[in-house]
Order: sequence, then structure tokens, then C-alpha cells
Amino acid sequence: MTGFFITIEGGDGSGKSTQAQLLTDWLEQHGHTVMRTREPGGTEVGVEIREIVLHHPGEIAPRAEALLYAADRAHHIATKVRPALARGEIVIQDRYIDSSVAYQGAGRVLGATEVRELSLWATDGLLPDLTILLDLDETVARARLNAANKRFDRLEAEKNEFHARVRAAFLELAAAEPTRFLVTDAAAPVDTIAAILRARVAELLS
Amino acid sequence: MTGFFITIEGGDGSGKSTQAQLLTDWLEQHGHTVMRTREPGGTEVGVEIREIVLHHPGEIAPRAEALLYAADRAHHIATKVRPALARGEIVIQDRYIDSSVAYQGAGRVLGATEVRELSLWATDGLLPDLTILLDLDETVARARLNAANKRFDRLEAEKNEFHARVRAAFLELAAAEPTRFLVTDAAAPVDTIAAILRARVAELLS
Repeated sequence: MTGFFITIEGGDGSGKSTQAQLLTDWLEQHGHTVMRTREPGGTEVGVEIREIVLHHPGEIAPRAEALLYAADRAHHIATKVRPALARGEIVIQDRYIDSSVAYQGAGRVLGATEVRELSLWATDGLLPDLTILLDLDETVARARLNAANKRFDRLEAEKNEFHARVRAAFLELAAAEPTRFLVTDAAAPVDTIAAILRARVAELLS
Repeated sequence: MTGFFITIEGGDGSGKSTQAQLLTDWLEQHGHTVMRTREPGGTEVGVEIREIVLHHPGEIAPRAEALLYAADRAHHIATKVRPALARGEIVIQDRYIDSSVAYQGAGRVLGATEVRELSLWATDGLLPDLTILLDLDETVARARLNAANKRFDRLEAEKNEFHARVRAAFLELAAAEPTRFLVTDAAAPVDTIAAILRARVAELLS
């Protein structure tokens, strides 16, 4: 018996947490055991790493930042995700390899290929069975975050142009692997998106 | 004008700090600007990473540990070592790529080649001009540490067999790159070792 690994990707403010929760509730109502998790921060070690990446005063060298995210991922996948999949559970994870490639590779100074290879080394090659991309115009995303009046962390505070590049990178990744990805318009009503996700997951699990 | 990069390697209790200090004093007396540094922990970010690696309760997945060391290294090399070398200084560093390969690669479950490649990616390919290996029988090293009555951290507490494998890995690395390495018997008197190191450094700097 093997589990099913779903990742949810998209920029900040695209509704990842809401959709992850709705999908989890629906799957549990249908008798599945679901483990919800996220990166960075899915483990105690990850929480400590996240502290460094997001709240360290001053710059972190780009390769160091990529390696810290990869370390969080390595520990998280080895100690939480793989054991849950081995027990036959459905894992729903907020952000994974595609976020790393989109944010670090395309968004910053490192190449997409080397960030992807680093991530695959960290996880010993684990790729999701399904990746949901909640695609949202960066201006809409910014307005949502402003409306929520949340304190911005370092990544959220980067300017719109950066978010536009990240969005383009996500769409490119999805285009390159159309079987793994399900791209949805995150500006649609919450229930509409939830229904689309349920339909795809039901199809893949049957 | 380019600097000179010296690394000092060897197990715990082999006298790395003592020899680094003696070499630094001697170089400074001869008019050189020396930056002494170490890994892990050479930067503020590194200190935070070191906290996680050495003092986190419970196991850290092997790939995560290797990636955390690589992250410390990436930040340290980019923000401290490369700038110092660019200013023409001599950098003396306690532990570097060879420690990673010896401890992580040969000593644990990961392959030496992949740990080396990870480290070279982290540093964008920086190798030392000279690496001093203070070679010491692990039983002698253990006795020294016991005599010092130091509180052991997680790595120091690993058993002797592990340290024997690390020592063998260091010696193998030195044999593979005889030009970069200077291997000395760390059981010799402190002044004897210091004189050997000074002679080699003087030769390389002239």
C-alpha cells in the first residue's frame, strides 16, 4: 500500500491554506487519512531553519538560503512525508520543489536547473503525484495581502516585479509537466476552485 | 593582489586551535594580515545553524545535516572568506570541505563524492591553497578530550570506531591531493608541529 503525495503551489495570497483545508476536510469525510504539512517549517528542525531564513537581520548569501531550504526539505521528507506515504496516507503539502525553483531559481540569482537538482538530492528524488498551482496575478495577490493587514515577512516584502517573475516561473514549470500539474485560476470563487481540485483528486485516486 | 587560503583539518582533540593560533601569531609578526575563522559557526548565521546541528534534541536526517553544514559554508565563504582573500589577506580556517567529506561522506551514510560536490556548489568551487591535516590516533584524541574534561557535543560523543573511520578518510583525502595537503603527526610536541607548519607556509608564500 502506498500513499498519495499532493503539493499546493502559488504566490503568497493565492489561497493555498484555504484550499488545502477544504481538500483535507473532503478527503477525511471520504475515509482517507490525510497528513497536512508545509515547507518551510514542517518539523521542529524546520521551524528553527525558518527562523534563520525569514528573520535573520541582514543578507543571507543566495546559495546559503537555497541550502537552508533544502535542509528543511531533506529533514521534513525523510522524517514526516516518506513515513506517512509508507503508511498509505494522503499527504497534502503547502509548497515544495516548485516553490524552490520558482523563488530561488527564476526569481533570484541561481539557475533553475541547479536548484531543482539540489532539491532532488535533498529528497532522494521524491516528486509529487499531483501539484496544484493556484495562479494569481501579482497585483491581485498584493491587494489581498494588504487587505488582510498582515505583517510582511522578508519574502512577502519583495517588490511586485519579483512576484511577477515567480508567477511566470510557476507557469513555465506547469507547462513543462502537464500531467503532474493542475493549474487553476486563484481569482475564481473559493468553492469553484475547491470543486475543480476535488474532481481531479477523485479521478486520480480511483 | 590575491590572498592565501589555509585550512586546518583533523579530529577533535588534535590541536587545531593551538596550531592555528601559533601560525597566526607568527604570520602577524611577519607583517601579514590574517583572518582566523572556522566552520561551522564563522558567521552569525553560522552560529544559528550550528545550534541546530549540534544541540537539536533527536535525530537530524543525514542529508539535512549535510545541507545545513553546506549552508553555513556557503554564507561564510561568500560573506567572510572571499572578501578577505580579495583584500589580499591570509585566511586560516578551522575545518572546511575535507571535514565535510570525512565526517559526512566516509563516516556516515552519504557518499564522499556527493558531499564534496555539494560543498563545491555551496562555495562556487573554492579550494584551499594549503590544507594542514593534524593526524592523530583516535584513542589518543579521546584521552586528550577526557583529560580536558570538556562537555561532549553530539559529534564528540560518537564512538571510537566512528572516529577511526573519519581519520582513515582524512588520510585518504590527503593521499589523493598531496600538493594541497601537509600531513603532520599531531602526537608530536606542539613546537615541533608549529615549526613544520611555518616552514611550509613560508615556502608557499615566498
